[in-house]
Amino acid sequence: MKEFMGRGFMLSNYAAEHLYYEYAERAPIFDFHSHLPPKEIYENRNYGSITELWLKTDHYKWRAMRAAGIDEHYITGDAGDLEKFVMWAKVVERLPGSPLYHWTNLELKRYFGIDTPLTAKNAADVFERCGEMLRSEALRPVSILKGSGVKTVCTTDEPYDDLIWHIKIREKGLPFRVLPTFRPDKFLRVDNNAWIESVRKLGVTERTEIGSYDALKNALGKSLKRFREAGCVAADMGFSRFAYTGSPDMDDIAEKVFEKAMNGDAVSEAEADAFESSLLLFLGKEYARLGLCMQLHIGAMRNVNTKMFEKLGPDSGYDNVGLATDPRKLAAFLNDLCMADSLPRTVLYGLNPVDLPVMTGIAVSFCDGECPGKVQVGSAWWFNDTASGIKAQLTESAHAGLLRSFVGMVTDSRSFTAFVRHEYFRRILCSFLGDHVGSGEYPADFEVLGEMVSDICCNNAVRFFGSESKF
Amino acid sequence: MKEFMGRGFMLSNYAAEHLYYEYAERAPIFDFHSHLPPKEIYENRNYGSITELWLKTDHYKWRAMRAAGIDEHYITGDAGDLEKFVMWAKVVERLPGSPLYHWTNLELKRYFGIDTPLTAKNAADVFERCGEMLRSEALRPVSILKGSGVKTVCTTDEPYDDLIWHIKIREKGLPFRVLPTFRPDKFLRVDNNAWIESVRKLGVTERTEIGSYDALKNALGKSLKRFREAGCVAADMGFSRFAYTGSPDMDDIAEKVFEKAMNGDAVSEAEADAFESSLLLFLGKEYARLGLCMQLHIGAMRNVNTKMFEKLGPDSGYDNVGLATDPRKLAAFLNDLCMADSLPRTVLYGLNPVDLPVMTGIAVSFCDGECPGKVQVGSAWWFNDTASGIKAQLTESAHAGLLRSFVGMVTDSRSFTAFVRHEYFRRILCSFLGDHVGSGEYPADFEVLGEMVSDICCNNAVRFFGSESKF
Amino acid sequence: MKEFMGRGFMLSNYAAEHLYYEYAERAPIFDFHSHLPPKEIYENRNYGSITELWLKTDHYKWRAMRAAGIDEHYITGDAGDLEKFVMWAKVVERLPGSPLYHWTNLELKRYFGIDTPLTAKNAADVFERCGEMLRSEALRPVSILKGSGVKTVCTTDEPYDDLIWHIKIREKGLPFRVLPTFRPDKFLRVDNNAWIESVRKLGVTERTEIGSYDALKNALGKSLKRFREAGCVAADMGFSRFAYTGSPDMDDIAEKVFEKAMNGDAVSEAEADAFESSLLLFLGKEYARLGLCMQLHIGAMRNVNTKMFEKLGPDSGYDNVGLATDPRKLAAFLNDLCMADSLPRTVLYGLNPVDLPVMTGIAVSFCDGECPGKVQVGSAWWFNDTASGIKAQLTESAHAGLLRSFVGMVTDSRSFTAFVRHEYFRRILCSFLGDHVGSGEYPADFEVLGEMVSDICCNNAVRFFGSESKF
Repeated sequence: MKEFMGRGFMLSNYAAEHLYYEYAERAPIFDFHSHLPPKEIYENRNYGSITELWLKTDHYKWRAMRAAGIDEHYITGDAGDLEKFVMWAKVVERLPGSPLYHWTNLELKRYFGIDTPLTAKNAADVFERCGEMLRSEALRPVSILKGSGVKTVCTTDEPYDDLIWHIKIREKGLPFRVLPTFRPDKFLRVDNNAWIESVRKLGVTERTEIGSYDALKNALGKSLKRFREAGCVAADMGFSRFAYTGSPDMDDIAEKVFEKAMNGDAVSEAEADAFESSLLLFLGKEYARLGLCMQLHIGAMRNVNTKMFEKLGPDSGYDNVGLATDPRKLAAFLNDLCMADSLPRTVLYGLNPVDLPVMTGIAVSFCDGECPGKVQVGSAWWFNDTASGIKAQLTESAHAGLLRSFVGMVTDSRSFTAFVRHEYFRRILCSFLGDHVGSGEYPADFEVLGEMVSDICCNNAVRFFGSESKF
Repeated sequence: MKEFMGRGFMLSNYAAEHLYYEYAERAPIFDFHSHLPPKEIYENRNYGSITELWLKTDHYKWRAMRAAGIDEHYITGDAGDLEKFVMWAKVVERLPGSPLYHWTNLELKRYFGIDTPLTAKNAADVFERCGEMLRSEALRPVSILKGSGVKTVCTTDEPYDDLIWHIKIREKGLPFRVLPTFRPDKFLRVDNNAWIESVRKLGVTERTEIGSYDALKNALGKSLKRFREAGCVAADMGFSRFAYTGSPDMDDIAEKVFEKAMNGDAVSEAEADAFESSLLLFLGKEYARLGLCMQLHIGAMRNVNTKMFEKLGPDSGYDNVGLATDPRKLAAFLNDLCMADSLPRTVLYGLNPVDLPVMTGIAVSFCDGECPGKVQVGSAWWFNDTASGIKAQLTESAHAGLLRSFVGMVTDSRSFTAFVRHEYFRRILCSFLGDHVGSGEYPADFEVLGEMVSDICCNNAVRFFGSESKF
Repeated sequence: MKEFMGRGFMLSNYAAEHLYYEYAERAPIFDFHSHLPPKEIYENRNYGSITELWLKTDHYKWRAMRAAGIDEHYITGDAGDLEKFVMWAKVVERLPGSPLYHWTNLELKRYFGIDTPLTAKNAADVFERCGEMLRSEALRPVSILKGSGVKTVCTTDEPYDDLIWHIKIREKGLPFRVLPTFRPDKFLRVDNNAWIESVRKLGVTERTEIGSYDALKNALGKSLKRFREAGCVAADMGFSRFAYTGSPDMDDIAEKVFEKAMNGDAVSEAEADAFESSLLLFLGKEYARLGLCMQLHIGAMRNVNTKMFEKLGPDSGYDNVGLATDPRKLAAFLNDLCMADSLPRTVLYGLNPVDLPVMTGIAVSFCDGECPGKVQVGSAWWFNDTASGIKAQLTESAHAGLLRSFVGMVTDSRSFTAFVRHEYFRRILCSFLGDHVGSGEYPADFEVLGEMVSDICCNNAVRFFGSESKF
C-alpha cells in the first residue's frame, strides 16, 4: 500500500518519480487557457474565507454536491460560509475516484500546508485555519500565481472588452504575464440571446457603427488588433455543435442573416450555421495573419436545466457532454483555411470522449513543417479532466506522434488555487512515460524523456504560442 | 499467480478483500430489475435439469454458442438436455475473458457446490450431479432467492397484467418481497406490431373501453395505481432510439395518431415519435405523482436477424447495441418533467458505451436536494455487464460524484441462479475502491469506504425506491 | 524494471511468456490482408536502402514526421535517402507510446540483427549497416517472407487486374502462396473520380462491352471467377460511410444511375447510395456463391487535406477516422444477404473505435452453425493497430464469445518487413490470456489456452478462408 498522497502520488514506478522530481516539478507554468478575472489579479484581492475562494463560482463542486443530494441552500443559496464549507467537506470525503477529491486535498496541502484530508470531522478547523491564512499576503492572487511558478497566464475575454485590467497589470510589472484571449463566441451564433447586445457593445468599444456584416468583420478585426497589442497570443471559440458548412454562398447568406438578426427577424438554424461558418472562416484567416493561435472547444451542451438556468444563469453546473463532432465539418474548416494559406496554429478540444481519436487524426492531417504539432489536440477538457481522461489523451497523442509536441496542461478554471491541476497532470504524464520504461517498452533514456517532460510541461507552449515571448 | 476463482477472485489487493469480506459479502440484495417469472416463484417450480435451468431461455449463452459455430439443433433445437449441456460445456471452457465463464462457474460453485470449472470432459458428470441436486428443495426458486440473501426482487410486467402471482406471493408470506414493475413499452410505439392487441388487453384488464387517446391514458393511469397497490416501486421503459420531440403540438398529434393506429392506418415515423413523446411525458408525470422511480433503457437494436426472428421470435439472441443516444432529446425529456415539477427519481441505462459519459452528465444536471443521486446512471447494462463495463460505469459515476449514491447492481435476468452477478459486481466494486487505497489515492479509511460499499450493495437502493420499504 | 524489448517484451507474466514461446512464436503466418506488390515478390526486388524499404510509401511514418514538424522536403520531397532516414530517426526516438517505435525497432532487430534502438546519434551507422545487408539475398522479398514464417499472403487487387504476377508467382513454385484479393471499391461509388475509367478498364480486361448495369455486373462476375481461379479466397470492400439502403427500388435506380454516370451526368448522393447498395448486394451474393470470404472496411474519411492531395495523391497520410457506422444499415445489409441464403463468411473492420461494440454485436447476430465466427470483427485496423487498440478488440471479442474463433492478425501494409506486426500482436494476445491466468480468472490450463493461441495466430484463418487450402 502506498502512502496517501505521498511522494509517489500518481507516480507508478521509479522512472515516473525520477521524471517528476527531476524535470516536471521544477518546470514553470504557461497556462494558456484560464478563466481567471484579471481585475482580481490587478487588485490582488483578499478572499474572506475558503468558501469564497472555493465555492462561490466553482460549478464542478456544485455538481458534486447536487449529485450527493445536498439542498441548493448550501450550494448557491443563503447558507453561511462555514455551513457551506462543512457541507462540501461532507461531500468531498465521499468522492474516492473523483478528481475533486485530489484537487481539494492538493490545494489544502500546497497552499495551506494542511496534510490531512478534508473530512466532515475536521471541516470547521480547516475552515478557520484557512480563513486565518487567507488574511495574509501569501494567499492573495499575486503571491499564489508567483508561488505556483506561473510565468504566463491567459484569461478569456470578450471582443468588446477594453482590456483595461490587462493593460494596468502590464504597467504594474508583476513577475508573470497576464494575457487576454479573444473569445468571440457571442458573435458567432446569431440565434444566441446575447448577439445583438454584443454587437452593440463592440460598436461602443471600437467606436464604430456596425450596420452591416462587413462592418461587423471590420470591428472584430480592429478588436483583434487591439488584443494583439495587449499581448494576446491566442483566440478561443466554443461550439455546442461544430456546424461549419463551407458552402460557396455562405458569405452571401451571412450578409442577409446579419440584417435579419439586427432587425430581430427569425433566423433558421441553417441560416445561423451559414453565418457562423462565414464568420469562422474570416476569423481563422485573421488569426493566421496576426500570428494568433486558434483554440476550438467543441461539444458542450449548455444550460439543459431550464428551471435552474432561470434562477442562476449560465456557468452554474448545468452543462453537459453533447453530440459527437462530425469529422467532415471539422476537417472541411481546417482544409478551407489551409487552401487559403491561412491555417493558424490550432489546438482542438472535444468534450465528447469519442471525439478524441477523430480530432487527433484530423490534427495530424494538417500538421506541416511550420512547427511541431501545428494542429494538435489539447489537454483533456472539463469532464475529461480526470486521471483516466488525461491518460486517454496522452495515449492517443502518443499513438499519433503528437505527444512530443504537445503544448500541455491548462487549468481552464476561475479559481486561483487551481494551479495544482498542473501538478496532477504532470504526475500522470510522468507515470505514463515511466510505465513505458518500467515495462521495457521504451529504454531508460532519461535524457530524451526528461527533455520531453520539460517541454510538455512548459517549453512547447512557450514556443507554440509565440517564439518572441521571453520569460 | 492467484488461485483460480479463490478467495481473492476479482479482488486486487488487501483493501479490496477487506471491503468485500467485511461489508459487501454480507449485504442483502435488493434486485430492482429482473425478468424472473413470478408464477415460478409462487409455484416454487422444480427444474428437471441444469439445461432447463440454464439453457432454455438464456440468450446470452445462445449467442456464445452461435459465435462458436454450434448448430442451432443444440441451442434452441431438438437435441436432448444432456447433449445441449455438453455442447455448452465445450463452448464455455473456451471463453476466457467472457463474463459467461465466470457466471457459469460461480453458479456451479455457489449453488451446486462444484469447485472445478466446467469443461467438455466433466460435463456429463456435472449434468448428472446438478440434476440430482435440482430434485431437492434447496434448488427451487424460494430457497435459491432466500439463500442468495435476496430481500426484494422486482419483476418486469405488462400494464395489462392482472398481477395475480404477485398478489398470491404476498399472501403466501415468503421471506422476501416480489414486486411488479410497470413496463409500458408496447404502448409507447404505435408502429410496433403488438400495439393494438396491447390496448385491447389493457381494456379487458381495466374493464374499460379504450376508444381515444385520453381513454388510453386513463386506463394506463388505472393500471399504474393497481401496480402501486401491489407494491410496485418502479416503472421501466425501453427504447431502441430515444426520440422525444417535446414539440408543443405533440399531444394533438398523439390524439390523431391514436385514431389512425386503431384503424390500422399507416403512421409515419415522425407521427409515431410524437405519440411516444406525448405518452412519455404523461407517464413520467404519473410516476412522479405516485412516487414511482423511472428507469429508461435506451439503445437496444432488436431482432436484426429476420430469418431467426421468424423461427424463434423476440429475446432469442438477435439484439444489438444500437445508435448512440441524442443528448439533446434525453435532456429535453427530463427538463420538461422538471419544468412541470414532476421529475421522478430516475435511473438511466444506455446500451451503446458512448452513452455513458453523456448520460452521467445529464443525470447530474437534474440532481437536487430531494435525495442522493435523484437522477443517476444504472449498473452496466446487458452487453456492458462485464468486468470492464462495470469498471467503466463505476469510474464514470465516481468522476461525476454519483458513485456514493449509486443504487447498485441488478441481475436483469430470467434465471434464478443469476444472483451470483451481484457477487461478481461487488467484487469489482471493492476492487475499484481498494485500488484507490492501494495506490495512495484515497486514505485507508475503512469506516467511510465500508459504509459506502454497504450502501451501494443494498441500502442506497432501499432508500431510493421508497423509504417506506422496510426489511 | 524490465529489460528493454527483451524476452518478456509485451508479455505481462509467466503464463504469457509460456503461451508466447511455446505456441505463438512458432505458428506460421496466414496474412489475409496486405497491400504488398506481387510484382516485387515475383521479381524478388532489391532495395537500395532502408529509406527505400521504409520511407518511400509508408504514410504512417510520414504522418509522425509531419506531426513532429518536419519539412515535407525530408518526407516525400527531394532530400537524399540518408537525410530522410536521419530525420526519421530523430522523430522515432521521440515516440514512446507509438506503435511506430516498436515496429521500427522490432524490424531492425528481427531483420537486420540490430539490437540497439534507433536514435538520431546512431542513424547514419544504422543506415549504412542496413544498406549493406539489403544488398544480400537475405533481405529480398522472398527471403523475408520465408524467414517470417509466411505460408500465405493475400494482396489487394483491382477487379480489372490481369493477375499476371500472381499467376507467374504460382508457376515459380515459392515456399508460400501469394493470393489476390478482389477489391471493387472503385466500382461501388459512381461519385468517385475513378469510376468511369475503372469500368472502361474492366471492359478491356474482361473483353466485353460494358454498356449497362447488367453488363457491369456480368463483367464483375467474370472477374470474380478469374480471381477465384487464381486462388483468391477473399474479397474486400472499403467505405467511408456505410450507406446501404436496402430499399426495394435500389436495383431500378442503379440501372438509371449507371446510365447517368456513364454519360457524365450529375448523380445525387442518394442515387449513388442506391447504386452502391444494389451492387453490394449483388457482390455479396456472388461471394457466397463462390465461397469467398467478405471483408468490410468501414469508416475511413480520406484525403482531407486538399492541398497535399493535389501534390501527392491518395494514400499519402491524409486519411482519418470518419463517422461512426450506423448499426441499422450494417445489420440490414447482412440481413438481406442472410434472407437470400447468401451470407458469405464475413470479417468486419471499423475505423472509428465506437464501432467496435456495435460491430461485435452485429457479427454474433449473424453467426450460425456453418463455421466458428462466421461473421466476426477483424483485428484492430489502422489507427487502432496499437497496443491498446489490439487489447480493446481482443477484450470485446472475448466478451462476445468470438475470441476463440478469431481469424487473427493482418499486416495491412505495403512493407515487406511489416510482418513483425504479427509478433507484436501475438505478444499482446498472449499477455491478454496470461493476465486472466495470473489474476485467477481462468485456470492455468495451457492445453486449452495453447491451442487457442495457435488457432488465433494461424489455424483459424486457414480454416475460415477455405478448408481446401493446404500448407
